[in-house]
Amino acid sequence: MPLSMPSVSSDIPDLIAVLHDVLPDAKAPVPLHEPVFAGNEKEYTVDCIDTGWVSSVGSYVNAFEEKVAELSGVNYAVAAVNGTAALFIALKLAGVEPGDEVLIPTLTFVATANAVAYCDATPHFIDSAVNTLGVDPIKLAAYLADICDRSSGRTLNKRTGKRIAAIVPVHIFGHPVDMDPLCALSAQYDIPVVEDAAESLGSIYKGRKAGSLGLVSALSFNGNKIVTTGGGGVILTNDKNLAVRAKHLTTTAKQPHAWAFNHDQVGYNFRLPNINAALGCAQLEQLDGFLKSKRALARAYEEAFRGMNSVTVFKETDFARSNYWLNAILLDSAIAGQRDVILAQMHEAGFMCRPTWTPMHDLPMYKDCPRMDVSVATDLCCRIINLPSGAALGARYISTYGDAS
Amino acid sequence: MPLSMPSVSSDIPDLIAVLHDVLPDAKAPVPLHEPVFAGNEKEYTVDCIDTGWVSSVGSYVNAFEEKVAELSGVNYAVAAVNGTAALFIALKLAGVEPGDEVLIPTLTFVATANAVAYCDATPHFIDSAVNTLGVDPIKLAAYLADICDRSSGRTLNKRTGKRIAAIVPVHIFGHPVDMDPLCALSAQYDIPVVEDAAESLGSIYKGRKAGSLGLVSALSFNGNKIVTTGGGGVILTNDKNLAVRAKHLTTTAKQPHAWAFNHDQVGYNFRLPNINAALGCAQLEQLDGFLKSKRALARAYEEAFRGMNSVTVFKETDFARSNYWLNAILLDSAIAGQRDVILAQMHEAGFMCRPTWTPMHDLPMYKDCPRMDVSVATDLCCRIINLPSGAALGARYISTYGDAS
Repeated sequence: MPLSMPSVSSDIPDLIAVLHDVLPDAKAPVPLHEPVFAGNEKEYTVDCIDTGWVSSVGSYVNAFEEKVAELSGVNYAVAAVNGTAALFIALKLAGVEPGDEVLIPTLTFVATANAVAYCDATPHFIDSAVNTLGVDPIKLAAYLADICDRSSGRTLNKRTGKRIAAIVPVHIFGHPVDMDPLCALSAQYDIPVVEDAAESLGSIYKGRKAGSLGLVSALSFNGNKIVTTGGGGVILTNDKNLAVRAKHLTTTAKQPHAWAFNHDQVGYNFRLPNINAALGCAQLEQLDGFLKSKRALARAYEEAFRGMNSVTVFKETDFARSNYWLNAILLDSAIAGQRDVILAQMHEAGFMCRPTWTPMHDLPMYKDCPRMDVSVATDLCCRIINLPSGAALGARYISTYGDAS
Repeated sequence: MPLSMPSVSSDIPDLIAVLHDVLPDAKAPVPLHEPVFAGNEKEYTVDCIDTGWVSSVGSYVNAFEEKVAELSGVNYAVAAVNGTAALFIALKLAGVEPGDEVLIPTLTFVATANAVAYCDATPHFIDSAVNTLGVDPIKLAAYLADICDRSSGRTLNKRTGKRIAAIVPVHIFGHPVDMDPLCALSAQYDIPVVEDAAESLGSIYKGRKAGSLGLVSALSFNGNKIVTTGGGGVILTNDKNLAVRAKHLTTTAKQPHAWAFNHDQVGYNFRLPNINAALGCAQLEQLDGFLKSKRALARAYEEAFRGMNSVTVFKETDFARSNYWLNAILLDSAIAGQRDVILAQMHEAGFMCRPTWTPMHDLPMYKDCPRMDVSVATDLCCRIINLPSGAALGARYISTYGDAS
């Protein structure tokens, strides 16, 4: 064996062989998630150029917002420049103010924590559940009972004296958080739910769509998401006043007028350009097909890894119907220490697999933030490997698994 | 006269007739500034879709950055999601910190002040010069001599005790600020210049290009700018370390790694999508033509309004070669009170003219910020009317004025 090859101990199962089995025709390097442009993408973007409407005003922005609202089962959708911006505005709409704390999972992409920081608020990290990878509402209930002080009529963290202003469930890899007990906690402690649905367009929790489960929600349409606008996001809510404020805040807080430039508060330049919305409109038309393909791919991975020692494919819970944005395997604890060796082996073989994110509480700028025991999330982070999950990869499995999906 | 018609006093010159003269074929409503897509816009955006590279990584982002740097005469350009984001990052790179004050003109678009506010700093408003519409360096010199305390080795505003951390000249409507005396003040007081060149791509100050005149600069490529990416911005600098930090801050402060997600500070999701950069690459190829057309249109307005009572066309100074992003007339003081009546008349006739922005010190969120005497800017704001200025409108005048432009 050449010295440059990663050293893999013999007790690691042959994951590369399984990847080749599931993805026989995929051309290396196989990205983690590649978009599919098989619809009206060119027609709509060329239409923007032909009509001269590429920027902040244009019919595709309206159409995109309407379609996203419909697909997410909410009354109002406001397009934004990306998912991070959408989540930041969503937190502001929920009333997060400088000095507040916001409960977020430590197992998430850094944008969740950054959006809190942009509010001059402090992320307060909570643990994950093994059945959803998202916030564990049972463990959270015990923790809130311990730390919350409601004597002032507001919910304060009695250890820091700060107000707890929001809770942000994140549907990790598209898998819905167990929202009912979480919403019960939200009601009990009067802490609004801001749903980070960046990864979960098309996912369903007990018949209700991801993005419709909080006071206000944020979606992402980054290039790696199930549907992309190049870069983009959306703020979702059923509350008309919040929707009006979302549009106002994302468009520099300018008061409507034929020519005058009056702005009534510090606003943001978060408008989604029309050309990006055009791309999004074409992509949304294909969402059903993408979902079918991605769910079929998940089934294929499940079958292929079945019975393999030391590795478990992560699967949606009974109450969830996931979009399977990213497929994931969990390494058994016995081989978790080999994770990076396995990843190097996968990359060497042309599969751009990745671990999940470094937990937020391990990042230098967030290491001193308050947190509960986050041992489950920390353990999950050491054991998760995400597998190639683009919709194109699942197309071959729709005929086999499409009916069951 | 029907009641709904605006009442125009008889001493107002017939501006509508002049607009019809200069723009005989323009179809109402004539926008203030419409983009021109006459190059490779479709080819490049379709190429993004064909290759699947629409999002945060892709060759058009690199090509766009290189071309903008070259056109602006600087070593480094870092693309951002819009001009506001670019200016915010530029301020951070210059060292603006929470609690600081930043000198900005009160006559500017709200994004200049907002970018300061996003830094948790305070805008400190300065007056404008009648020959450039931008910062008046002579008046500023006298003001700084009065308010600055350098005894600590830093430049403090002795009235507030706060550090003055940056000065932001804005090249209004594309007309360069008189930078030499401003840069002398910057050196004298050790206050870095952050150039807001959002409106001035292609403008030249004493042979040097707008965007190359500060420590770090911000450009905008919004839909109403001379060159558009739908929505986009660029950070410019000659300092390699600042450029590296700009790229890092605009890409979530993620440390490079094949798979690991480590972020070393609170970063931002400010990447420009590749599809927007593709549009920008096609637009930049046409910049020379746009400049020629816009400068010819400016000459046409100048000739058409020549000798008209009560109205002056704003013209570049001797040291400047402006991109004439927006043409402007100044109403004489005697008829300034009729400005809104004139604007209503223009809109009624199909010309989407506008006043300039409400001065920043008159906006509710900035009304208590520190400021010098801003009487010139306040007066200008009451008298400026911007005229339709899109590059397409000037094409007919290139043969007449192209040589002189």
